[in-house]
Amino acid sequence: MQYRRSLLFLLCALCLHLVKAQVPLPSNQPNEVQRRLIERGYGMFIHFGPNTFLQQEWSDGTAPASVYAPTALDCDQWVRVAKEAGFRYVLLVTKHHDGFCLWDSKWTDYDVASSPEPTDVVRAVSDACRKYGLQFAVYYSLWDRHEPTYREKDFGKYIEYMERQLTELMTQYGEVCELWLDGAWDKPVDDWQIPRLYKLVRRLQPYCAIGVNHTVAGVESHKSYQWGDLVLPDSCNRDNRYYLRFFPSDFRLWDPMIAPLYDKKQYLHNGESYYQPFEHTICLSKSWNWFQKDKPMPVRDLDELEELFYWTTSNDNTLVIDLAPDRTGRIRPHEVDRIVELRQRLGIEYGKPLPRRRDDIVSIGARAEASSVYPSNDGNYTSRYAVDGGMQTRWASSDGDLTPWLSLDFGQEKTFDKFVIFEYQDQHQGDDGFSNIRTGRIQQYTLDIWQDGQWIPIYVGDETIGDCKVIRLPHSYLSSRVRLRVLRATLPPSIYELLVINES
Amino acid sequence: MQYRRSLLFLLCALCLHLVKAQVPLPSNQPNEVQRRLIERGYGMFIHFGPNTFLQQEWSDGTAPASVYAPTALDCDQWVRVAKEAGFRYVLLVTKHHDGFCLWDSKWTDYDVASSPEPTDVVRAVSDACRKYGLQFAVYYSLWDRHEPTYREKDFGKYIEYMERQLTELMTQYGEVCELWLDGAWDKPVDDWQIPRLYKLVRRLQPYCAIGVNHTVAGVESHKSYQWGDLVLPDSCNRDNRYYLRFFPSDFRLWDPMIAPLYDKKQYLHNGESYYQPFEHTICLSKSWNWFQKDKPMPVRDLDELEELFYWTTSNDNTLVIDLAPDRTGRIRPHEVDRIVELRQRLGIEYGKPLPRRRDDIVSIGARAEASSVYPSNDGNYTSRYAVDGGMQTRWASSDGDLTPWLSLDFGQEKTFDKFVIFEYQDQHQGDDGFSNIRTGRIQQYTLDIWQDGQWIPIYVGDETIGDCKVIRLPHSYLSSRVRLRVLRATLPPSIYELLVINES
Repeated sequence: MQYRRSLLFLLCALCLHLVKAQVPLPSNQPNEVQRRLIERGYGMFIHFGPNTFLQQEWSDGTAPASVYAPTALDCDQWVRVAKEAGFRYVLLVTKHHDGFCLWDSKWTDYDVASSPEPTDVVRAVSDACRKYGLQFAVYYSLWDRHEPTYREKDFGKYIEYMERQLTELMTQYGEVCELWLDGAWDKPVDDWQIPRLYKLVRRLQPYCAIGVNHTVAGVESHKSYQWGDLVLPDSCNRDNRYYLRFFPSDFRLWDPMIAPLYDKKQYLHNGESYYQPFEHTICLSKSWNWFQKDKPMPVRDLDELEELFYWTTSNDNTLVIDLAPDRTGRIRPHEVDRIVELRQRLGIEYGKPLPRRRDDIVSIGARAEASSVYPSNDGNYTSRYAVDGGMQTRWASSDGDLTPWLSLDFGQEKTFDKFVIFEYQDQHQGDDGFSNIRTGRIQQYTLDIWQDGQWIPIYVGDETIGDCKVIRLPHSYLSSRVRLRVLRATLPPSIYELLVINES
Repeated sequence: MQYRRSLLFLLCALCLHLVKAQVPLPSNQPNEVQRRLIERGYGMFIHFGPNTFLQQEWSDGTAPASVYAPTALDCDQWVRVAKEAGFRYVLLVTKHHDGFCLWDSKWTDYDVASSPEPTDVVRAVSDACRKYGLQFAVYYSLWDRHEPTYREKDFGKYIEYMERQLTELMTQYGEVCELWLDGAWDKPVDDWQIPRLYKLVRRLQPYCAIGVNHTVAGVESHKSYQWGDLVLPDSCNRDNRYYLRFFPSDFRLWDPMIAPLYDKKQYLHNGESYYQPFEHTICLSKSWNWFQKDKPMPVRDLDELEELFYWTTSNDNTLVIDLAPDRTGRIRPHEVDRIVELRQRLGIEYGKPLPRRRDDIVSIGARAEASSVYPSNDGNYTSRYAVDGGMQTRWASSDGDLTPWLSLDFGQEKTFDKFVIFEYQDQHQGDDGFSNIRTGRIQQYTLDIWQDGQWIPIYVGDETIGDCKVIRLPHSYLSSRVRLRVLRATLPPSIYELLVINES
C-alpha cells in the first residue's frame, strides 16, 4: 500500500514535470525555460532580407526573390561581431512580414534558394553561433504578405504551412533558444492557434522560450485583436489585472517599448497568474530603422545604450539590440564600433553573469512638483510620472510654460553623483520615408540642489538632451531636494524619467 | 696681466649675467624667467570686481566703489579650487579697465577699501597661494577709465601712478611669478613706457615674467597702436618676419587667440630675434564671459578642455583658464566640478611635470582636398587650412555647398583611432548683452576611410560638433585617406582643424 502510494506520487510528479516542460504553470517564479532566458539576457537582433534592398521597412511580399542580392554576404561576420560585442545569443529574422524566407524552405519558392545569393542564412548564422559559442534564436512572422495559403478561406492551410516551416527551423539548425512570433495584429487572436504552434515547438525544442508580440492586453477576450486592448508595459506594473492575450507563452513582447524598472511580471489567464519576463527590442540606430538602408544612419549614444542596458536587463528582463547588415551583407563598421564600445564600457565577460546595475537610484518615488502640468482630464502628465520608474509615462509642462522646473523632494538628505534625463522627443519621418527623426525641446537647463535655504545650480547644460542624457558629477552631493530648471526650450518640455543616482 | 684679463672677463660675464636678468637677450631658447613660466604652464585666471556686480563685461569706471559688494567673499575657496584643479598658479585681475583696485592702494580711493567689503583681495589670494603651494600672478590694466591722471595732458603723471601701484603689487604680496599688462590699445605704443615699467618690475621681482597683450605686430613701428598691424598667432608661425610691438617682454599675449601647434616663438626687435612663448587665455564658460553674471552659464565640454589643454601647453606655451567668482564672492559649483573633472581626466599631479600629449597627430600636413572652397582672392579658405595645425585659419565650403566633403591623403597608410573636429561657429550676442552664443552649422556627417577602392563610413554623427568634437574609436583603423562628409548643414560648413590622431 505504502509502495503503491509512493509509485502513484512518483507518477504524478513525473507527469507534473512533463507538463511543466510543456506549458508554463501559474507561478510567481521563473521556470527552467524562463530561467535560461533571463540568464542569457542580452542578444543581437538581425533584420536582413528584401527590405534591405528595397529602401523600405515593410515591403508587401510582391517584390521578386531576385531583389534579395547581397554582394558580399558574410554571416560569419555578424556572429563574430555579436561575440565581440558580448551578446549571449543571436536572434535572426528568418521570415519577416513580406514572407521571404532566409533559408531554403521546401514549402515555398519565395526564399534565398530562388535568389541570386542562395546561401542558407539560417544555417550560416546558426553554424556561426555554434562556432563562436553563442545561442541561436529565431524570429518568425505570423503575418505573411506573400504566401498564397495565407489568403485562402480555410486559414488552417496557412497554419499547416507555418507548422511545416517551424518544423524546418526547429529541426534543421540545432538548438534554438528562443522563438519570437510577430505580426499577429493582422488576424483575430484565436485564428493563429498559438497553443498548437507552442506545443509543436516545445516538443521539438524543449528549452526554446516562445513569445508573441503584444503578449498582454487589458481585457480577457481572445476573439479579436484590438489595438485598443493593448496596455503599455508601465500600466501592466500597477497591479495584477492584465491578461495574457496569447497563451501559452514564456515571455512578454511589446516591441519596441520599455518595461518599468520594477516590473512585476504577473499576468492573468483563466483566473490564474503567470510569471512572464519581458524581452526588450531596440535598434542600435537612432532612426529606428530595423532594416539597413542606403545612407548610413547615426547610432545611439554610448551613455544612452549603457543606461538602457542596465534599465532593461537588471530586473530579470532581457534586451536584444538590432544591428542590421547592409546590402553588401555585412554589418557596417560604425555600428560594429559602437556595440563593441558598449561591451568595453559595460565590462561584459563571457563565463560571468551579465553586469548588473550596482548604483543606487535615489529618485524613484520622490515627491515631485512642477511649475506647471499639461492639462488633461486623466492627469496623464503629472510630475510624479517623471519619478515612477516608467518610460511610457511622462511629465509635461503646460503650453505657455517654456521655462518650467521640476523639483524632487526625497523627504531626507540623500547622497548622489549622477543624473539621467530621459526627455520626450518630437518625432517626424525623414525624407527617406522610413527613418524616425527625433528632436528634443530643451535647449538650456540647470540641475540645482537645495542648500542653506536656496537653490544652487550644480550643472548648467546647453547641449541636446536627446533620448537620454547622462550627467556624471566629479564628486557626491548631499541634499534633500533637487531641481531640473529649464532656461530655454523650443516647445513645452516633457520628461519621461529623471533619475538621480548614487554611483559611488 | 693674465690676472687683469681674467678679472676683466669675470666683470664682463657678471655684467652680462645682470643684463640677462634684466631684459631678454636675442635667443632661440628660453631664458630662466621663461623656463619657469613654461614649467608652470597651467594657471587659473580670476576676473572679479565691479563688472561682477554690474551685469557687464567692461564697465566705464564711473560706478561708485559701493557697487562692489560681495555677500560672502571667500578668496580661500578660489585658491582651494585652483589647487584641487591642478593649477600651478593663480593669475588675479588686480585692476581691470574700470580702474577699480582689488587691494587697498595708497594712490586711489577707487578700491576695495572704499567698498562695503574692504578685504584686500590681492593679499587674501596671494596668502592663499602660499598656503596651498601655488604661485601668484598679477593682471594689471594699463588702460584706466577712472583714474584722473590718465586724462591729464602730461601722461607722465599716469605712468608714475602705475609705477606706484606696481610697486605696491610687487613689494607687498611676496613673490609674483607673472605680470600681465592689458589695454594698451587705448594709446600709441610708446606712450606706455613699457621699458620703464619692465625695469621697475624686474628690479622688484627678478623672476616675474612680464607680458603685454597684443605683443606682436606685422610692422615695426611703435609710434601708434593700429589694430590693423596685429597679426594672428598662426601667421606669426609661418616665418620669422613679425615684430615685438612691446619690448622688453618675456612672453606673448593675444587674448583669447590660440597659437599654432608648432609655434616657432621667434620675433624681431631692432633686427634681432627673440624667443617668446605664448600664454593662452580661455574662459571656462562657453559664453566667453570673463566676469561672472547673474545667470549661471554653460561651461566648455570636458573633451574640448582636454584637447585645448594639450594643444596649448604641450609645445612650451602656457594656458590660463578663467573661472570667475559670482556676486557672493565664490566660484560656482558647476564650474568647480568641471575644472576638477578636467584635472581627473588629465591626471595632473603636483610634483610631476604637466601631462603632455602622448598621442601622434597623423593629419598635419596631409594633402587636403574639398568638394568646394569659399571663394576669396587670397585663398583664405582653402582646404589645407584644415590640416595646418592652426586655429585661426580654416577651410570653408562655397555658398551653395551644404553637403561638402573634405578629404585628407596621408601619402601612405597610417594608423589612427581618434578624430578631433574644430568647427567654425557663428556667433551672436545673447539677450544679456554680453554672452557670446556660438552655433555650429553641421547637423549630420560621416567620417569615412578609403578601403578597397571605396569610401567606408566608420562614424556617423548627428550631434552638435560645437567648438570641438572628439571621436574616439574603440580600435585602430589603417588607411591612407580619410574623409569628413557632411550630410546635413544649416549653412556652408567651415573647419578650423581636423585632427586625425593615433592614441594607442
